[in-house]
Amino acid sequence: MTASTKGRFITVEGTEGVGKSTNMAYVKQWLESKGHEVIHTREPGGTPFAEEIRELLLSKREEKVNSQTELLLMFAARCQHVYQKIQPALERGAWVLCDRFTDASFAYQGAGRDLGFEKLRQLEAWSLQGFKPDLTLMLDLPIEVGLERARKRGPVDRFEEEKIEFFKKVRQGYLDIAATEPERMKVINAEGTVEEVQLQIEKVLAVFYRQVMS
Amino acid sequence: MTASTKGRFITVEGTEGVGKSTNMAYVKQWLESKGHEVIHTREPGGTPFAEEIRELLLSKREEKVNSQTELLLMFAARCQHVYQKIQPALERGAWVLCDRFTDASFAYQGAGRDLGFEKLRQLEAWSLQGFKPDLTLMLDLPIEVGLERARKRGPVDRFEEEKIEFFKKVRQGYLDIAATEPERMKVINAEGTVEEVQLQIEKVLAVFYRQVMS
Repeated sequence: MTASTKGRFITVEGTEGVGKSTNMAYVKQWLESKGHEVIHTREPGGTPFAEEIRELLLSKREEKVNSQTELLLMFAARCQHVYQKIQPALERGAWVLCDRFTDASFAYQGAGRDLGFEKLRQLEAWSLQGFKPDLTLMLDLPIEVGLERARKRGPVDRFEEEKIEFFKKVRQGYLDIAATEPERMKVINAEGTVEEVQLQIEKVLAVFYRQVMS
Repeated sequence: MTASTKGRFITVEGTEGVGKSTNMAYVKQWLESKGHEVIHTREPGGTPFAEEIRELLLSKREEKVNSQTELLLMFAARCQHVYQKIQPALERGAWVLCDRFTDASFAYQGAGRDLGFEKLRQLEAWSLQGFKPDLTLMLDLPIEVGLERARKRGPVDRFEEEKIEFFKKVRQGYLDIAATEPERMKVINAEGTVEEVQLQIEKVLAVFYRQVMS
């Protein structure tokens, strides 16, 4: 298999209500129009067992959940997802499009819950041995705008109940990663209309596609 | 709180059917006779949330469970157990008696599933920051004898279905830890009668108790 026939791994990140679902559908369609098989998946989850871990993570409970426990569960689901689903798909030439990945752990737990990036880096290295997305689209929006959009969609889960301050730290976490890895993570301004946002995404995708397929 | 008023953490280890339950009841009674509050707990599990993780780990499923996934779930349950239950109990002066702990991960996953000890050591350091049992009783029995005892007790879970060869590696894993940390892990020959085994345990406990309470 040559470099251009192997699939690529694209992730979409962002805080609540930035429009991940709509824009992932757009990215999927764009890639399919180029003739690729596209696997659309999500984290935490992505396989039946990883989805069971997701349920544990997102369900509300009386017991205080230790922050390391949360992180270990997140990476347990991630290992299952990567080794049982994502890597096999990439190997057979499919493109994989994932709603959140390791960057979300850095942003939510590392920055949002103040665990720090170093602790995360150790667990990432232990779990994934350097496996990273080829491209990450970070949909960026002021927190107040995003939460308002998310609340209109329906009931909120444990993460969505957190305070505005938490989400501001999460957003900053994402922006810090983008500043460190500008080649991989592209910040998309998600404040405009659907068409405006997709125009930005299309430009990023087109450049990325030319690079990897040449 | 002085060294002698803080609780101590004692774990009991061993392969299937070595008599952990019977002998843990004996250790609990022995410590209570000295006037200590004793918390009897188990791994994986020990808190309601950690028990939910235990259920995920032990239930049978079609999907192949990645060995790193299994290990991360095990340490997720362990973090919850240590930080929410074990350490608070020790701090208030209770003694904690636990059916399996980190040594079981080294023996079952590290040795039994050939993941190696180094990978385990990294995850242990990340999760527990050096927290270890003060004393570990390793009940040792030839694998054939232990499995025969375990089968008489009732239905077997996923681990108990594994082959004899696996359990032989697990036993050797335990013995290797005991050889490396002879002060902490004491090997108890579990082949004799209940009385013979408890006599050995009583001797180990008495020496340990004199050391820590002096």
